[in-house]
Amino acid sequence: MAFVESIVDRVRQVTGDQRVSLHEPSLKGNELAYVTECIQTGWVSSVGSFVDRFECDLARYTGAAHAVVVSNGTSALQIALHLSGVQPDDEVLVPALSFVATANAVRHNGAWPHFVDSEARTLGLDPQALDAHLDSIGERRGNHLYNRRTGRRISAVVPMHTFGHPVDMPTLSAVAARHGIVIVEDAAESLGSFLEGLHTGNFGACATLSFNGNKIVTTGGGGAIVTNDAELARRAKHLTTTAKRPHAWAFFHDEVAYNFRLPNLNAALGCAQLERIEVFIEAKRELAKRYAGAFAGFDGATLFLERPGTRSNYWLQTLILAPELAERRDEILQAANAAGLMTRPVWELLNTLPMYRECPAARLPVAEDLARRIVNLPSSPQLAGAA
Amino acid sequence: MAFVESIVDRVRQVTGDQRVSLHEPSLKGNELAYVTECIQTGWVSSVGSFVDRFECDLARYTGAAHAVVVSNGTSALQIALHLSGVQPDDEVLVPALSFVATANAVRHNGAWPHFVDSEARTLGLDPQALDAHLDSIGERRGNHLYNRRTGRRISAVVPMHTFGHPVDMPTLSAVAARHGIVIVEDAAESLGSFLEGLHTGNFGACATLSFNGNKIVTTGGGGAIVTNDAELARRAKHLTTTAKRPHAWAFFHDEVAYNFRLPNLNAALGCAQLERIEVFIEAKRELAKRYAGAFAGFDGATLFLERPGTRSNYWLQTLILAPELAERRDEILQAANAAGLMTRPVWELLNTLPMYRECPAARLPVAEDLARRIVNLPSSPQLAGAA
Repeated sequence: MAFVESIVDRVRQVTGDQRVSLHEPSLKGNELAYVTECIQTGWVSSVGSFVDRFECDLARYTGAAHAVVVSNGTSALQIALHLSGVQPDDEVLVPALSFVATANAVRHNGAWPHFVDSEARTLGLDPQALDAHLDSIGERRGNHLYNRRTGRRISAVVPMHTFGHPVDMPTLSAVAARHGIVIVEDAAESLGSFLEGLHTGNFGACATLSFNGNKIVTTGGGGAIVTNDAELARRAKHLTTTAKRPHAWAFFHDEVAYNFRLPNLNAALGCAQLERIEVFIEAKRELAKRYAGAFAGFDGATLFLERPGTRSNYWLQTLILAPELAERRDEILQAANAAGLMTRPVWELLNTLPMYRECPAARLPVAEDLARRIVNLPSSPQLAGAA
Repeated sequence: MAFVESIVDRVRQVTGDQRVSLHEPSLKGNELAYVTECIQTGWVSSVGSFVDRFECDLARYTGAAHAVVVSNGTSALQIALHLSGVQPDDEVLVPALSFVATANAVRHNGAWPHFVDSEARTLGLDPQALDAHLDSIGERRGNHLYNRRTGRRISAVVPMHTFGHPVDMPTLSAVAARHGIVIVEDAAESLGSFLEGLHTGNFGACATLSFNGNKIVTTGGGGAIVTNDAELARRAKHLTTTAKRPHAWAFFHDEVAYNFRLPNLNAALGCAQLERIEVFIEAKRELAKRYAGAFAGFDGATLFLERPGTRSNYWLQTLILAPELAERRDEILQAANAAGLMTRPVWELLNTLPMYRECPAARLPVAEDLARRIVNLPSSPQLAGAA
């Protein structure tokens, strides 16, 4: 009881005495100007200068050679997995502690998610636990890895940078190479997060971003595939734009493909948002500092902070409850939300959802523990100075 | 030669002496005001009042009980087919004369397109030819129809209302009922087109719309599922919004689902566009009259006009070349486009595209003939008075 009240009070020390949502976009830059330009020129749809510019801007910002923008992060991951060689009935290793889209994108390829554990120091996939798990259930045949229990090929692993905190990619890269599997990074939450000076998304075959309304940069809805592989980028563009061969008038499409285009109207929003990303990140880093201060010396919970060697975008501020408070998590959420402070738990572990219950899974002690102890706090950049 | 020049001249009589595109959106109503409202209030993303309003407005306008807006017409059709009972490895009857998305949406369900012929009086699927084809290759087993040649179940038929001209739905409904297959209408091109007083999209289990940039009403990119079946609508909403169960904070998703949401920003554009649809249609009908006048008494080509009992939205103006001019179609396209008049042929027949060549197909004499003789003319409503 005292603990619950104390947590709510400490959050309110930072947010002030107002109702606050979990994450609100800040649209005070060139958003209106660029969107107005789209409407006044008539270029609102599937091609346009903002689509081209947003792709260039994203490539420049992430340091990836190529970016292909699409309608959302789930569709981006679906295509990224396909282009990285995932075949129907393969298994793809994904953290149980992730948003449901990570697993859905695997199923949209006809493949099966195979859930693995996370580590407490990154909140993301644990490469060493993965290594041990693959040693125990995996079997190399030629260049491919198979799951000895199910007989299915394990073709890829999808690290997801939880709340903007980078997974330990150097270790994961070594593990993936050792077992012969491809890395596709789900960087939906980590635009602006760096690891050893390299932007997340540059450690695998390709990576995916999301620009949903609650993300650090929004296009309303949208996503992107980023990659350093020119051929993969070319294929991604072709497959997400109906696979039409260029021609002055003929409609010749050369493979089964998708309409996953990001409209120019939405790309315009993205260009304006990306201009201000460093402002948002500075504000979020300041907000983390304030929350960390408010919880300093408190036994019941600590703010999750970036690891040395990383720069987190601090997309969602994350409180880790002390183990003995795990059972009171819902009480804390109830009290905070009742007080007008929008907070939420992390996702239900994916292996516990009805459609994924029968899928293969490693032992998940850390993910299970974290799932009971994470509380996300109000995280809008406006709470720490960004307009 | 004289024929080619004469056709270009007659088009120019209508368009005037300017460069004209095939179809440009007109965004002079409340588009900017509504989009500005989204940006100023911060409601640009996957939920918002324009999403709700656009769904209500679409239901009211089409006369369907329910509308669920999604990210585009292809995704709408993918979900509509799934919810109408199409299973992986089924066959779905689709006109060979359609945009590639009609067949892609079938493949996205793991099912196979089975191509059927069109009729010259509607440009759409020929129900009588279909009936004869199914008599010849179909076999009823219990409540289901099977293709005797492939052994696969034939579960649905997808009439597509070409360029806004309604398919003969009463005859098709009788044929579908006789053979035990479901109708899913691809009404991507026919928002505003009516048949015997009923809006297209109200003749099957459900129907899909598209709001791509070239459509009569645009959201940049977008689509919708319309239906009179409340349960199907509820399922469509659930499946296209990650299947999350409503809860104050918990992330509980109860099936493999999609992120096919239409952002509020795009729905705002749609609301403004739909306010003006009758203005656009009146202009397009006037444009058809002018083209028909310009080609009156000309032997080489005639403008395709709506059938009695229908009101077409005249989305794309359609010239049908005389049979003896079919071979000169590309010359005509070349001359018109060189003169700044954007014209185009109809789509390559879907059964001729590399990925669909091996799919089952009926005899397609009419589609093959039409594919050689159709030329679409500049069709923007601005060409006949709409601002």
